[in-house]
Amino acid sequence: MDAEFINPFLEATILVLKTMCFLEPVPGKACIKSGSSANGDVSGVIGIAGEAEGSLCITFPKECILFIIGKMLGEEPKEINDEVKDAVGELTNMISGDSRRRLQEIGHNFQGSIPSVISGEGHEVRHIGKGPILSIPFSTEAGNFVVEVSLG
Amino acid sequence: MDAEFINPFLEATILVLKTMCFLEPVPGKACIKSGSSANGDVSGVIGIAGEAEGSLCITFPKECILFIIGKMLGEEPKEINDEVKDAVGELTNMISGDSRRRLQEIGHNFQGSIPSVISGEGHEVRHIGKGPILSIPFSTEAGNFVVEVSLG
Repeated sequence: MDAEFINPFLEATILVLKTMCFLEPVPGKACIKSGSSANGDVSGVIGIAGEAEGSLCITFPKECILFIIGKMLGEEPKEINDEVKDAVGELTNMISGDSRRRLQEIGHNFQGSIPSVISGEGHEVRHIGKGPILSIPFSTEAGNFVVEVSLG
Repeated sequence: MDAEFINPFLEATILVLKTMCFLEPVPGKACIKSGSSANGDVSGVIGIAGEAEGSLCITFPKECILFIIGKMLGEEPKEINDEVKDAVGELTNMISGDSRRRLQEIGHNFQGSIPSVISGEGHEVRHIGKGPILSIPFSTEAGNFVVEVSLG
């Protein structure tokens, strides 16, 4: 995976959260590594196909996602309920779509699939495949979340 | 989603587990429903793109997957460790690939992405999207698992 892949995913994440949730997550240092898994309480996972096969995963701790969805819906939910899960699916879809639009602008064509949302305290999302993994941490005033992209 | 989609996923699941794990899971009654989520301890999720966008998810309870991977590796693991997670990813990939080969034989073209493996006691996988969901339960001598396909 080229370093030029970092910005499309990073900028898409910031744009979508800014537009939908009126907040600006602060990106930390992105890295490309050979193996990775993310831990959290709710995750959106979406497959990517095209010039390479892969997946995009956004993993949030509970406190962080309740804060983010609260900004999106106007009232902070108390639990990771179905409304929160659907909203995570929607954000994942939009970040995938906007990332792919940005990748197309630099000559990379990918199709997206539809998101699955995983919930469960402290679950782990493990990326399978021989390809490298791009990991971008973000911080908000209610904690950190991570965007991981695996392309095989 | 057409009922003709059932058999490719059903037969692929049986073939892959028979070939890799020397066991024949017994399929229950498949159904196509408008909303669904699966609960389990380990899940393989893979995106599908092409004439429709979707995802394939296989969700196992702990006892069932330890039994299945024990058959595959020759020794039953005690925990859902990294070896088990990688094996779930491999099985998910093979079931996705064989399903898509069977779909192609009846005129449907799909590409697969690469699997993510989710682990965490009692996690939920929720399919996002407006499309119907195909759910196929399977039973083994160590419990039941479910294959769910969402196409949007």
